[in-house]
Amino acid sequence: MNLLVLQPDDIVAPGRALVQGRRLEHVRLVHRARPGDSLRVGELGGRLGEAQIVRLSPQVLELDYCLNKPPPAPVPVTVLLALPRPKKVRRILRSLAALGIKRIVLTNSFRVEKSFWQSPLLKPAAVREQLLLGLEQAGDTVLPEVIHEPLFRPFVEDRLPALAQGCRRLVAHPLGAEPCPHALNEPLVLAVGPEGGFIPYEISRLQEYGFTAVHLGARVLCVETAVLSLLGRLLP
Amino acid sequence: MNLLVLQPDDIVAPGRALVQGRRLEHVRLVHRARPGDSLRVGELGGRLGEAQIVRLSPQVLELDYCLNKPPPAPVPVTVLLALPRPKKVRRILRSLAALGIKRIVLTNSFRVEKSFWQSPLLKPAAVREQLLLGLEQAGDTVLPEVIHEPLFRPFVEDRLPALAQGCRRLVAHPLGAEPCPHALNEPLVLAVGPEGGFIPYEISRLQEYGFTAVHLGARVLCVETAVLSLLGRLLP
Repeated sequence: MNLLVLQPDDIVAPGRALVQGRRLEHVRLVHRARPGDSLRVGELGGRLGEAQIVRLSPQVLELDYCLNKPPPAPVPVTVLLALPRPKKVRRILRSLAALGIKRIVLTNSFRVEKSFWQSPLLKPAAVREQLLLGLEQAGDTVLPEVIHEPLFRPFVEDRLPALAQGCRRLVAHPLGAEPCPHALNEPLVLAVGPEGGFIPYEISRLQEYGFTAVHLGARVLCVETAVLSLLGRLLP
Repeated sequence: MNLLVLQPDDIVAPGRALVQGRRLEHVRLVHRARPGDSLRVGELGGRLGEAQIVRLSPQVLELDYCLNKPPPAPVPVTVLLALPRPKKVRRILRSLAALGIKRIVLTNSFRVEKSFWQSPLLKPAAVREQLLLGLEQAGDTVLPEVIHEPLFRPFVEDRLPALAQGCRRLVAHPLGAEPCPHALNEPLVLAVGPEGGFIPYEISRLQEYGFTAVHLGARVLCVETAVLSLLGRLLP
């Protein structure tokens, strides 16, 4: 936790917060902080700054804080993911939040197991927890929006065009004709298929809507490795 | 498993193999293959090709195979990692093997917990298992070499110079003066610190030995996200 992200419920008066639960435990047992120590804090969705620990007990962490810096600039990339296996989706959400991605669309694909959509790990509270962990790691305060699109075709036909308006559109595909470009300085939608890849029908629908299929070389990567390598490559 | 990697013990005659254990289970229960089906195979350290399933039972998978293609070209990057938490090191090794990295050095750093070095997950058999999973994912046959260097200073002074001979040298550091470059087409050593980063002494020793400190922007990434983003960015 490189940043303690204060949530509306934590704030008891202007510049004064009471923190409990996981974040309290972390400050006590991992940071081993003491009253008088300072901590990097930020307000959820708002600015960053510094806090002084006024009180620290197993029950509560009391902070005096002052915010004076904006959070890091958002990354203008929408990541469109065929829903990964729920165990993996947690880690991917955390990494995407840490990288500064502010819009994530989880969509269906022929190779996504239907049962994945029922996972408790996709419930809003579970998703939010992973995103917060990513923000705390990275030092950011702005939660990404996570959109569930459990039907591929209506999503692509009805909502993707508006969502991708004005953006360059790439879909990662081992059989893509071009290597993935480097360092794009423009808004982007990056689509990544499930293990085994999007099927040809899905690729051709995406191409119809302006997506270019790009590859990362001869090796087939798992979704997580692929997404992180692709973003490292695409971001300027 | 996108490639079944045949190991010396599997091969019973030229072009004939018997496979048991995890890979047999995978072919039976995940691929749901049947006799007569074909599979992508490769010989550990050698070429790729195709196999036909001659026999498939809960006890054994018998294959007739023919190899006719070289594995993908190795990636000329040495990754020098301050030993991550053992639970994470497994996944990182798997991803690095999948990306085609052929030399990984695990070294000490002030912020690496001493106990990490004792983990059973660092034993050769456990490391090899993760590397094989990476190769099976990516469709490669050449195992990376993994070198343990539990003493930072003797490693940097005595062995790093030979190991980094003729290579560009970068160390990822949130306070690095330059942004990490893109698409380097040359042999490279990439050093990545532990959670919390290399300490200033370690950074300055690496700089003394020709390393440039580079950053990935304002966000602080965990080791796994950082390594994969950096490699995506650095590889051409």
